[in-house]
Amino acid sequence: MSGMSDEEAARHRARMIKRKQVQDAEVAAKTITEKGLLIVHTGPGKGKSTAAFGLALRMLGHGRRVAIVQFIKGAWQSGERAALARFGELCAFHALGEGFTWETQDRARDIAACQHAFEVARGYLADPDVALVILDELNIALRYDYLDLATVLAALASRPPLQHVVITGRNAKPELIAAADLVTEMGAVKHHFAAGVRAQAGIEY
Amino acid sequence: MSGMSDEEAARHRARMIKRKQVQDAEVAAKTITEKGLLIVHTGPGKGKSTAAFGLALRMLGHGRRVAIVQFIKGAWQSGERAALARFGELCAFHALGEGFTWETQDRARDIAACQHAFEVARGYLADPDVALVILDELNIALRYDYLDLATVLAALASRPPLQHVVITGRNAKPELIAAADLVTEMGAVKHHFAAGVRAQAGIEY
Repeated sequence: MSGMSDEEAARHRARMIKRKQVQDAEVAAKTITEKGLLIVHTGPGKGKSTAAFGLALRMLGHGRRVAIVQFIKGAWQSGERAALARFGELCAFHALGEGFTWETQDRARDIAACQHAFEVARGYLADPDVALVILDELNIALRYDYLDLATVLAALASRPPLQHVVITGRNAKPELIAAADLVTEMGAVKHHFAAGVRAQAGIEY
Repeated sequence: MSGMSDEEAARHRARMIKRKQVQDAEVAAKTITEKGLLIVHTGPGKGKSTAAFGLALRMLGHGRRVAIVQFIKGAWQSGERAALARFGELCAFHALGEGFTWETQDRARDIAACQHAFEVARGYLADPDVALVILDELNIALRYDYLDLATVLAALASRPPLQHVVITGRNAKPELIAAADLVTEMGAVKHHFAAGVRAQAGIEY
């Protein structure tokens, strides 16, 4: 790190000038300047919902409206919910799930909860003033056929053109991935649960 | 979805009761109830820094202190920065990078910026009142040898035992992954840049 010669410094600079030209050309080649993105966070790793909340934070920082609908998680108090309350009416938060399916043990109740959540989501998906809609754990609801996939895809397709949507949850349906603009697969490389460590406040909830 | 028979409903319930027993046993088997986690978000996909900001939000919602040090990104205004300002002194935010290496084109300046950022980070890594420290893009600084890996690992190892740390950036060093409790690899399945769409306010920045 120390002891870099003038020659090395010059070589570094030349490489970086070339790299900047490539970057600038790539940016210039992108001709669509504004578009509402359909974003999917899937995979077995951590960070799917957490990254969605990070996007909420970013959008709220731009002073734009955000709506969050949780399809599986119930109404228990969570850190992100308390934090987002600071943004008042700029951020709507609906925890409409009844908990995980193995907590409720009642499929009919799970279906009813998901369908109610989707009706709430639909309202936001029709409102161009909402810049970002987060449909948290919607993939779980789709996987268990608690919601009709075609109905969900139609609602997404007919939303305002500049509205961004983030859908989270494992096992995203191939049809949803096909419709999406941006898909990230969170892979679990290593997990503290395997080492006998419980869920931590501020990390898991 | 409709037309579920009583028999089907009962089968679902029985499956879910069994699943809950498995889940409860797994939770009970975890004997470490509180531990500061070393978390790494790496991989080529989106969401590494964003998920770290989501964790910041969650921790702030619990009323605990958070410190964020950005090693590469510069002092330009970003959505998350404006949003986190709402939390006042609970959240410290230092954007100490000089921008991407191909923007500065000056390796000596990049190294000096990273080393200054690490000195700031060290202060938080010694303060047990800080519940979460985010070292954003530290992996980039390590990859280009802007910081000494052994020095960084020693500072992480000697931090307060209940303090959580998140380190982001592509190409995490194997030694860092070995030291970590939780590692998520963000994989890029699909990206709107490839379809000619530019970075969007509230999503990329």
